[in-house]
Amino acid sequence: MEDRIQLGHGSGGIMTKELLDELIFEAFSNPYLDKKHDGSVVKLNGKMAISTDSFVVSPIFFKGGNIGDLAINGTVNDVAMCGAIPKFLTLSFIIEEGLLMEDFKRIIQSIKQAAALCKVEIITGDTKVVERGKGDKIFINTTGFGPMHSKADISIDRIKEGDKIIINGNIAQHGIAIMSQREGLTFESEIESDTTHLHELVEDLLDAFGEKIKLFRDPTRGGVASVLSEISGETSLGITLKENKLPIDKQVKAVCELLGLDPLYVANEGLFLAIVDPEIESAVLTLLRSKSKGKNSQTIGEFTKDHPHKVVMNSVIGGKRIVTPLLGEQLPRIC
Amino acid sequence: MEDRIQLGHGSGGIMTKELLDELIFEAFSNPYLDKKHDGSVVKLNGKMAISTDSFVVSPIFFKGGNIGDLAINGTVNDVAMCGAIPKFLTLSFIIEEGLLMEDFKRIIQSIKQAAALCKVEIITGDTKVVERGKGDKIFINTTGFGPMHSKADISIDRIKEGDKIIINGNIAQHGIAIMSQREGLTFESEIESDTTHLHELVEDLLDAFGEKIKLFRDPTRGGVASVLSEISGETSLGITLKENKLPIDKQVKAVCELLGLDPLYVANEGLFLAIVDPEIESAVLTLLRSKSKGKNSQTIGEFTKDHPHKVVMNSVIGGKRIVTPLLGEQLPRIC
Repeated sequence: MEDRIQLGHGSGGIMTKELLDELIFEAFSNPYLDKKHDGSVVKLNGKMAISTDSFVVSPIFFKGGNIGDLAINGTVNDVAMCGAIPKFLTLSFIIEEGLLMEDFKRIIQSIKQAAALCKVEIITGDTKVVERGKGDKIFINTTGFGPMHSKADISIDRIKEGDKIIINGNIAQHGIAIMSQREGLTFESEIESDTTHLHELVEDLLDAFGEKIKLFRDPTRGGVASVLSEISGETSLGITLKENKLPIDKQVKAVCELLGLDPLYVANEGLFLAIVDPEIESAVLTLLRSKSKGKNSQTIGEFTKDHPHKVVMNSVIGGKRIVTPLLGEQLPRIC
Repeated sequence: MEDRIQLGHGSGGIMTKELLDELIFEAFSNPYLDKKHDGSVVKLNGKMAISTDSFVVSPIFFKGGNIGDLAINGTVNDVAMCGAIPKFLTLSFIIEEGLLMEDFKRIIQSIKQAAALCKVEIITGDTKVVERGKGDKIFINTTGFGPMHSKADISIDRIKEGDKIIINGNIAQHGIAIMSQREGLTFESEIESDTTHLHELVEDLLDAFGEKIKLFRDPTRGGVASVLSEISGETSLGITLKENKLPIDKQVKAVCELLGLDPLYVANEGLFLAIVDPEIESAVLTLLRSKSKGKNSQTIGEFTKDHPHKVVMNSVIGGKRIVTPLLGEQLPRIC
């Protein structure tokens, strides 16, 4: 096979067929994909959650992951945030002419591994190639779907005063990993992206607590601040955050200070916020802390009638600060 | 609103929210999308067809359409080719910084109109922005799904010797429209892309003929030649094509000759091939020819045991020619 992706690999002719046969169908073989039709037929029953995301992260390889596993985990997590169990994914590539075949193969392998870990099947896909200088190595779209958890009753309308906001781990890891790599920063211990799948944790929570969980959201682009501002804007309530409860790695915090970044706005890929009834708060924390992906869980705030539509943070030094949503761009192409 | 798309529009912050609220949610408002969650929940029952495509066509505006309606029609047709009725679409943009807001608005409007004509709803989406020079104006991914037609039994394994290959209209329109525009060619009457949705025609055929229809395929990238080569390669049969039956517009044919392009390899966006039991051939043609999108329908060939895995064309001048699949790239970024 060629050393680099060529325009012909996107032609729909023999070169496309060879690329698909040797790399894609080989890696992801399953009864759906093996039909090699332009689409796939699956049996579905009941309420299904569906989510789509295009991934344009730069660089495509970074500490802790690459655009391939990110594209799987990211969409799997978006489906999970609806209260569903991801089952199937579609996979679509836009590749820049000249991408090293070696890099493409590495990405395919990461996708394969991530999909296996997530227990999702890739059932159909698409491959396009654009001329050199008209893309940036590779962009990946994944669309995921799966059945709603039978006990899920996820809706922003169900949030009430006093509901608690729980986060499952340390903030700002993904954004700082990408940023460090872009800026060529090196540290004693390398900071890794937190990209991972979260649907098993979500399933555990729904199994145990059902409708006592009001909402899940993953604080990716725009970070915790933007997601909470958005939620608060769509309810009639405000949010009170406790700065001293925000879990953050010391080194990540130091890098944020060095770069002048507020960690509250930095993207995460392995985190979710669960908005829960206060009566299950401590049981949720106990469950989460018993799992490796939840060991740093914290209640970081709660909903209040005091300041509708506003997120107010009680700072470590005793003051109060209004947390506004991100305006423009902090870190372009973070996911 | 700004005159051009900026990186901040992909930030996940306020600029993203404004863009979505003012353009996307406004245009596509429906109960699914209005929830503004990262995903959407729909009720589905039974066998569903699913297809995904990323559209990278250049130029983004062309005679007869633009990347917006192409992205809707293309995926709707891929779902229909499975024997299904498209119902829902996801919509994901990768926009290059600097895209004129005016152009983005035009594209959104085309998407809206095409989706309305197709009777599909856009239920969730994503918007990313990449830096100037790292993309090419706009790429669009759509993933579509819908329930299988109750009478459909679409499978390549069901094709038998003697089955007829019927096409619903003139070949090579889309590719030549794009190519003419790129090359700055002008003709007496402009050649338009044939981009359109085909699922209503597919539904009519399945209503009338059910399992007598063995396969649908749309000859997009790589044209009729590549699709037929692919099908023939996956069966134990060969295909005999009749050149004098291939419907083609005179002017399109002249341009193909001028540019040295074989119309059999040129992309189409408003065509499908139906492989049907010979006993329904004339009834299928009668039905198709009664519809505007099928008025130029023709039987262009049939399956044979004579030359397994080969497509052989009986030419107008009496000779025979083996039709090989497209090797590399004829027209990059045709869809």
